[in-house]
Amino acid sequence: MHMPEPFSFRLIKSDGAARLGEFVTRHGRVSTPAFMPVGTQATVKGLTPDMVHSTGAEIVLGNTYHLMLRPGAERVAALGGLHKFMNWSRPILTDSGGFQVMSLSALRRLEESGVTFRSHLDGAMFELTPERSIEIQLLLGADIIMQLDECLKLPAAVGEIERAMQLSLRWAERSKRAFEKGPPGHALFGIVQGGDNAALRRESARRLTEIGFDGYAIGGLAVGEPQEVMLATVAEIAPALPADRPRYLMGVGTPEDILEAVARGVDMFDCVLPTRNGRHGLAFSRFGPINLKNARHAHDARPLDADSTCPAARDYSRAYLHHLVKANEMLGAILLSQINLHYYQDLMRGMRDSIEHRRFEEFRVQTRDGWARGDLADTGHSGNQ
Amino acid sequence: MHMPEPFSFRLIKSDGAARLGEFVTRHGRVSTPAFMPVGTQATVKGLTPDMVHSTGAEIVLGNTYHLMLRPGAERVAALGGLHKFMNWSRPILTDSGGFQVMSLSALRRLEESGVTFRSHLDGAMFELTPERSIEIQLLLGADIIMQLDECLKLPAAVGEIERAMQLSLRWAERSKRAFEKGPPGHALFGIVQGGDNAALRRESARRLTEIGFDGYAIGGLAVGEPQEVMLATVAEIAPALPADRPRYLMGVGTPEDILEAVARGVDMFDCVLPTRNGRHGLAFSRFGPINLKNARHAHDARPLDADSTCPAARDYSRAYLHHLVKANEMLGAILLSQINLHYYQDLMRGMRDSIEHRRFEEFRVQTRDGWARGDLADTGHSGNQ
Repeated sequence: MHMPEPFSFRLIKSDGAARLGEFVTRHGRVSTPAFMPVGTQATVKGLTPDMVHSTGAEIVLGNTYHLMLRPGAERVAALGGLHKFMNWSRPILTDSGGFQVMSLSALRRLEESGVTFRSHLDGAMFELTPERSIEIQLLLGADIIMQLDECLKLPAAVGEIERAMQLSLRWAERSKRAFEKGPPGHALFGIVQGGDNAALRRESARRLTEIGFDGYAIGGLAVGEPQEVMLATVAEIAPALPADRPRYLMGVGTPEDILEAVARGVDMFDCVLPTRNGRHGLAFSRFGPINLKNARHAHDARPLDADSTCPAARDYSRAYLHHLVKANEMLGAILLSQINLHYYQDLMRGMRDSIEHRRFEEFRVQTRDGWARGDLADTGHSGNQ
Repeated sequence: MHMPEPFSFRLIKSDGAARLGEFVTRHGRVSTPAFMPVGTQATVKGLTPDMVHSTGAEIVLGNTYHLMLRPGAERVAALGGLHKFMNWSRPILTDSGGFQVMSLSALRRLEESGVTFRSHLDGAMFELTPERSIEIQLLLGADIIMQLDECLKLPAAVGEIERAMQLSLRWAERSKRAFEKGPPGHALFGIVQGGDNAALRRESARRLTEIGFDGYAIGGLAVGEPQEVMLATVAEIAPALPADRPRYLMGVGTPEDILEAVARGVDMFDCVLPTRNGRHGLAFSRFGPINLKNARHAHDARPLDADSTCPAARDYSRAYLHHLVKANEMLGAILLSQINLHYYQDLMRGMRDSIEHRRFEEFRVQTRDGWARGDLADTGHSGNQ
């Protein structure tokens, strides 16, 4: 007698394939399309929770793989759960750990039952099964829990893609059963696999829908394939998923990836790019990406974007941001992480508003035009340098 | 016709040798005893200007040596000065660059005229004279400017200490002349040298007072000598300085150093300890220093100090701070820098209040008792572990 409540999703309006929606969790509401900053080790790198919220973020993502290794799911539970631990009172989604086991751990062994691996931190052996992944995510207290799946790198042979997809389906069923035995108040998402093969993707989507989940993720993309393959796969799969459930494209992506995926019917995203690139001196903006390491910024008294609603984009000159990046000062990473997450949230807000007013296509063209124009337009120059 | 205004200092009350005061600059008032966070490269490491101000800081310090090398004083001036560059609208004191030339640069050559050195960044040659140091600090737009001096490491031979002290006096005169030719609205401080030799210290203080400065610093301490030598020197010198001018003990120190120096008549301090130790997992607190790396914190759900006025000391568990430090997350450095600067400012506020009510000695005893008790008192244990 699992109670799926209080998680609920409401599709408010569509404009073409783009969707405006909202979901509700025990920890609050989230408007979609939504971007989730990544809080790998129980912190969005470089920012306090207040700073994260002030960018407009309504939900963050936590990584099961990292947290099960350090500080450990049982310890987080004993300390009151992940929300309390990281001082974030709003919704949290956790991934299943499967993706990081494949990309970060050593000596992993994949079997029907699950995956055993050595921690990249201290070499200790761990086992992750669908049941243990659900248990960990419940211990963390995540609002949205992801099934364990096997995520392949692309390109891969079709036989290998099918094997991983079928295994992920069996793990989806086991995840659902384990989840239903857990406490109420959480949501479980299934994950569509099938690589770049449309038939396998459709079969995965159909059988996951038969099992029945609170939401559906598209996994196994942004793993090495060209952008057009990713977008074609999204365009193929999104319509095959239930319209009354949120759709989450995992690990994606650049502002352009996100804009184009929303145009194809995706509701949720997560990605490390805004914070990782911020730590490396790269700003995302209405004018496209701006590399603050570039010497041309050294004398530039202009802020990054005088019209931004982000204080960090208005209150510091490009010359100062350049200086901080060159001097390897933490404040450079802090401000650029803030600026980038704020820009991502601005993009999401802009998409939501435009869907609301059925002007998504106009917003999409204007946004792409702004990126193409570059950041020197107002100085009389044109293009990116 | 140099106008010393608008810098002014007012001694409000004394309690024993401890002094409550206030100075006024173009960029605002500062209550003394004051602690100045160090913003070496035009940023207090790890914190936004708002965060720095929210700890209670009313003035920050900038480093001439670092800023003359990168981004360069002329560039900062072209960008509107250091206040605008780093988005800090309150008072700034800059040092003369001399101390860092001695400790950081390679191939330095000290002459009567000044010091030539190679940048530790790129090997470029630079010259720093008393006149150039003043010029740089005026280009930066500092509210309080320090004379160039020669700062020796201790122990040193008395002949060497005297030579450096006499050179620093000649540089003090040249600094004063250069400063008087500059624009109004800034203050110039002289620096007492003389190592651990009381007679040389007294001569330095007397002759600096004859030249006449807006404030007087005690330099050449906290450079390797035992704490009792430092405090004995401070006790010797402070009464020899004009009572109607602020006294600044450069580069000092631990909370205990500061408490004891205020007890001996010092008004101003700067030190990298709160931010540097914060980056290394060490918290300063009412209970003394707390090393968050220690495994005993891993399970500790208590905040660092539930009664603190610092949100970062209240809103996160010790277990979480321990996790951030162990995981080498930026947020650990950010929160502990905030916590430490806040604790330093709490200490300054506590000293100011106690002098105001002529209860400084009581405050001093209580504060030292708190440090000695350690942070486990409320768990039934005693002492530091």
